[in-house]
Amino acid sequence: MTSHRPPLTVAQYGIGPIGAEIARLLLTKSWVKVVAAVDIDPSKIGKDLGEVIGLGRNVGVTVTSELESKPDVVCHSTGSRLRDVADQLKQLMNRGCHVVSTCEELSFPLDAEIREELMQVARAANVTLLGTGVNPGFVMDKLPLTITSVCQDVKSLEIIRIQNASTRREPLQRKVGAGMTADEFRAAVDAGKIKHMGLRESLMMVGNGLGVEFDHVTDEAIEPILADREVVTQFLKVAPGQVAGVHQTIEGMGRINVSLELRMYVGAEAVAADRVIVHGVPDVEMEIKGGVHGDRATAAMVVNAIPRVVQARPGVLTMDDISISFR
Amino acid sequence: MTSHRPPLTVAQYGIGPIGAEIARLLLTKSWVKVVAAVDIDPSKIGKDLGEVIGLGRNVGVTVTSELESKPDVVCHSTGSRLRDVADQLKQLMNRGCHVVSTCEELSFPLDAEIREELMQVARAANVTLLGTGVNPGFVMDKLPLTITSVCQDVKSLEIIRIQNASTRREPLQRKVGAGMTADEFRAAVDAGKIKHMGLRESLMMVGNGLGVEFDHVTDEAIEPILADREVVTQFLKVAPGQVAGVHQTIEGMGRINVSLELRMYVGAEAVAADRVIVHGVPDVEMEIKGGVHGDRATAAMVVNAIPRVVQARPGVLTMDDISISFR
Repeated sequence: MTSHRPPLTVAQYGIGPIGAEIARLLLTKSWVKVVAAVDIDPSKIGKDLGEVIGLGRNVGVTVTSELESKPDVVCHSTGSRLRDVADQLKQLMNRGCHVVSTCEELSFPLDAEIREELMQVARAANVTLLGTGVNPGFVMDKLPLTITSVCQDVKSLEIIRIQNASTRREPLQRKVGAGMTADEFRAAVDAGKIKHMGLRESLMMVGNGLGVEFDHVTDEAIEPILADREVVTQFLKVAPGQVAGVHQTIEGMGRINVSLELRMYVGAEAVAADRVIVHGVPDVEMEIKGGVHGDRATAAMVVNAIPRVVQARPGVLTMDDISISFR
Repeated sequence: MTSHRPPLTVAQYGIGPIGAEIARLLLTKSWVKVVAAVDIDPSKIGKDLGEVIGLGRNVGVTVTSELESKPDVVCHSTGSRLRDVADQLKQLMNRGCHVVSTCEELSFPLDAEIREELMQVARAANVTLLGTGVNPGFVMDKLPLTITSVCQDVKSLEIIRIQNASTRREPLQRKVGAGMTADEFRAAVDAGKIKHMGLRESLMMVGNGLGVEFDHVTDEAIEPILADREVVTQFLKVAPGQVAGVHQTIEGMGRINVSLELRMYVGAEAVAADRVIVHGVPDVEMEIKGGVHGDRATAAMVVNAIPRVVQARPGVLTMDDISISFR
């Protein structure tokens, strides 16, 4: 029982919107002692963490530009691309810290070279590195994999996430293209500005968990979802015919076909859901009504992973390597 | 990727209805080589496993009364009570075999003394012992725990399984009391003849996974569900007012309240489902339509656990200690 042990010492590394959400959650946990907070933003450095994350009270932890102590665990949230954050992850592990990161590309590292480097550092330092979040990290990979365990056979697997962007923060509403014309949307896709990160990682984690090597994996298709009515959110207005959001898909074909479909758009309140459809023996159809809210759940996944990570074997793990629950 | 490794050698220990279902499934897996089959029934000993499990073909494995080889893994399915099977489990582990068992009381061993004995044997033999199945083992413990991982806070958890007994085998329909009068049902409950095994184990696994020590755990309530119309199955007929099945509940109260409700009765086709309702931040409501079929899924859980168990740490593990998916 975690409650009888001394609290785990934890640092928050990166205090953007997600990092701040993680820090707020860490501060509510009796089994966590937040001992450090790190960010590169000069406007945050030197301030109390409580002030930076809008708590309305000081928590006695001053934001620094580098990690100066050696906490048990670091919650890392600075970027989506593994290449950009690999050096940070190595530094943190070399200090002797376990690391739980929201880096989407870390959820199932596809770059074999970086993965191997991280694995060597983790093993040498005897620590565990895990990439997690709600997506990638749970609703389109870990949860579907877990559901398939009741099956004697699986022919194909459909994983569908319809997320209502209306209840998400403004940057996300902008990022899915809400309010753009279809042409603006396509230009933004071509410029790499509209893309949910991690869909390929989720697909490959699912394939790996099922023991399937796909014969063929499609390119990710990124299409606009056009509003069929006016949609008004707290932050913006979408006219009929304008873009409401993004429809992104990927599929792996092989002994088992696995398709992932992500629809993230404003005005989706009536149809929002997370769904897993297994065609197999038996067929299984699972639904989470309304779907799991992105930002809050990502912070939850990171924090809930901590007690599992400190007990896991050293190395670079994925969510398919650990058991998880609320803590 | 399991497909490139030599197959795991596996023995089936116990060839009753569930053991036969497991054996049939094992024989379909390319990554498994079934090398032995054990049963105490003189009518099965000496026969080919394929004949005993009704395959209509021989598989080259003769049923014996004792395990004579040392397979990598033994699938054990001989009884529900830990006290009755503990010696078998120790023998199998002392041979150096990992063991995956359907023993319901093994899913979360509540008898501390037996658990400690098994733990010592497992560690000394450097093998892993796991109790699993669909219930206990998945739909009312492992799956709800996994679902809660998206939550920042959990106030209470409702776990509801409504299983349509009409599609289950005859012994199960009889075991839930279908066709009895209410008086006969209560007498059968008092005699210990009507009881789903493992509900308390599921509750305690959930509490443990959530890091909660319950202040109070209710006794298990076992009540009849009376038919409000005539129900006819392949095996029996239930008149209106007669017992259609069983309604069994248990609840743990503490920092988080957890309630488990199992309804297993004939004629439940319209309402059958597995459901998890989390009251927390956020609320989460998950449903598997129609519910997961018991016997088939139990065999699936056992076989799908094998690749995870051979990679797990030694000891007595529960489903909350391992990750799982179809293989």
